[in-house]
Amino acid sequence: MTKSQAEQIKPITDNNANVLYQHGTLALLVPGLLEGTTTIGELLKHGDTGIGTGEGLDGELIILDGEAYKVGQSGVAERVPDDFTMPFANVHHAAFQYQCERSDIGLKALNNRIVEANGRANTFFSVIVRGTFSFIKTRAVIKQQAPYPTLVEVADRQAMFLRHDVRGTLLGYFSPVMFHGAAVAGFHEHFLSDDRTFGGHVLYAVLDHGKIHSQVFDTLMQHLPVDDPGYRNHDFSKDPIAEAITTAEGDTH
Amino acid sequence: MTKSQAEQIKPITDNNANVLYQHGTLALLVPGLLEGTTTIGELLKHGDTGIGTGEGLDGELIILDGEAYKVGQSGVAERVPDDFTMPFANVHHAAFQYQCERSDIGLKALNNRIVEANGRANTFFSVIVRGTFSFIKTRAVIKQQAPYPTLVEVADRQAMFLRHDVRGTLLGYFSPVMFHGAAVAGFHEHFLSDDRTFGGHVLYAVLDHGKIHSQVFDTLMQHLPVDDPGYRNHDFSKDPIAEAITTAEGDTH
Repeated sequence: MTKSQAEQIKPITDNNANVLYQHGTLALLVPGLLEGTTTIGELLKHGDTGIGTGEGLDGELIILDGEAYKVGQSGVAERVPDDFTMPFANVHHAAFQYQCERSDIGLKALNNRIVEANGRANTFFSVIVRGTFSFIKTRAVIKQQAPYPTLVEVADRQAMFLRHDVRGTLLGYFSPVMFHGAAVAGFHEHFLSDDRTFGGHVLYAVLDHGKIHSQVFDTLMQHLPVDDPGYRNHDFSKDPIAEAITTAEGDTH
Repeated sequence: MTKSQAEQIKPITDNNANVLYQHGTLALLVPGLLEGTTTIGELLKHGDTGIGTGEGLDGELIILDGEAYKVGQSGVAERVPDDFTMPFANVHHAAFQYQCERSDIGLKALNNRIVEANGRANTFFSVIVRGTFSFIKTRAVIKQQAPYPTLVEVADRQAMFLRHDVRGTLLGYFSPVMFHGAAVAGFHEHFLSDDRTFGGHVLYAVLDHGKIHSQVFDTLMQHLPVDDPGYRNHDFSKDPIAEAITTAEGDTH
């Protein structure tokens, strides 16, 4: 990351910087409730930074500086329009605080140190890592058509990508264990290369060198698709929510 | 309920009417994290209607029309000041919609019909029942001192109260099953008599006659005590959260 990029990280300036907005829940994806129930345009009212997935698990989304990108089964990143719909997304107003600089560290070790350093295992927070990654492995689910499969069935229908020596941004959210189901407990991280050509849901990475910023939230604003018939009529009590989310979205692969 | 009381129920007039604010989670109470981490004054910024419990499980709280009442181990209701602290509370801006009128119905049957009638098992909503109750059974936990016991240990330390032919207001919140832990899945209901002398956490009731209003939320605004050392340092992964909440707070007693 150049010095000018670091300076672009905004300070905390408004009351919304401590709020994480979430549309839908990961529990919705477990039985295959994959209809798009919000749009990028709507989401951007609640923040300029975030991650999500499109209708039918159409791509791994990342929003940086108010611009939304999607990585589909080709592994290539592309801009998505404001009317692009999603069943699940997180977004917030970026106001990251500088945390540290790190070299030659694997993603899992990095994540563990971030939690240890700020003692925030029971708190929602966001982490952004800007730098050069000596290795990164991402995945993107292949877009599904209705009637939609379950999240566990989709686990076989994804493409994986490996890259070496790529500069870019890794954006993640950490959710406390008591919210497993609404979110995935632990980290959920997406990536976008600086040249805006490559990205995806991060499975593994080694940071060559880069800077880590984080942002702690005291409030989760959980928005539900209360008027969506599929959501309203579904019986979640029979779904293996915790197990399926851990299998499909957990941060150890 | 008199006609004038019914007319006092406000229509939906602002954007906040679809938001349920929650401070803390029921999961915090399971291991005995009973420090007061918000105040009535702070809570009233987020609504005029709600329920909660005081520090050390000091009383069953109910907030109606912006006035907060506490029912302690005597069963007698008393006003609480703005600086009264709580580990857990729900509050919202009242904008209830008339649902129906009912006579001679038990609480469990009434609750089941409310969920069936609006098909809202996956949505947070509030229910308010104003009328005459031919029978009502409430409880209040006896205030605990630090070091605090666990929620299951406290189950033996409560007072129960029975009343016949009492006029009053039953205020409840319904939470979807996927949020069991953050809240108690299903209904969580408190009571206050019209003469403001009696109330508590409702265990059982029979409505002689009364009117039911409800209010659906599309957003849960979940506020966490992120700076409380007890909360930050606790390892929730070892707590029997779901089981303890069902035992202590479930709506079938």
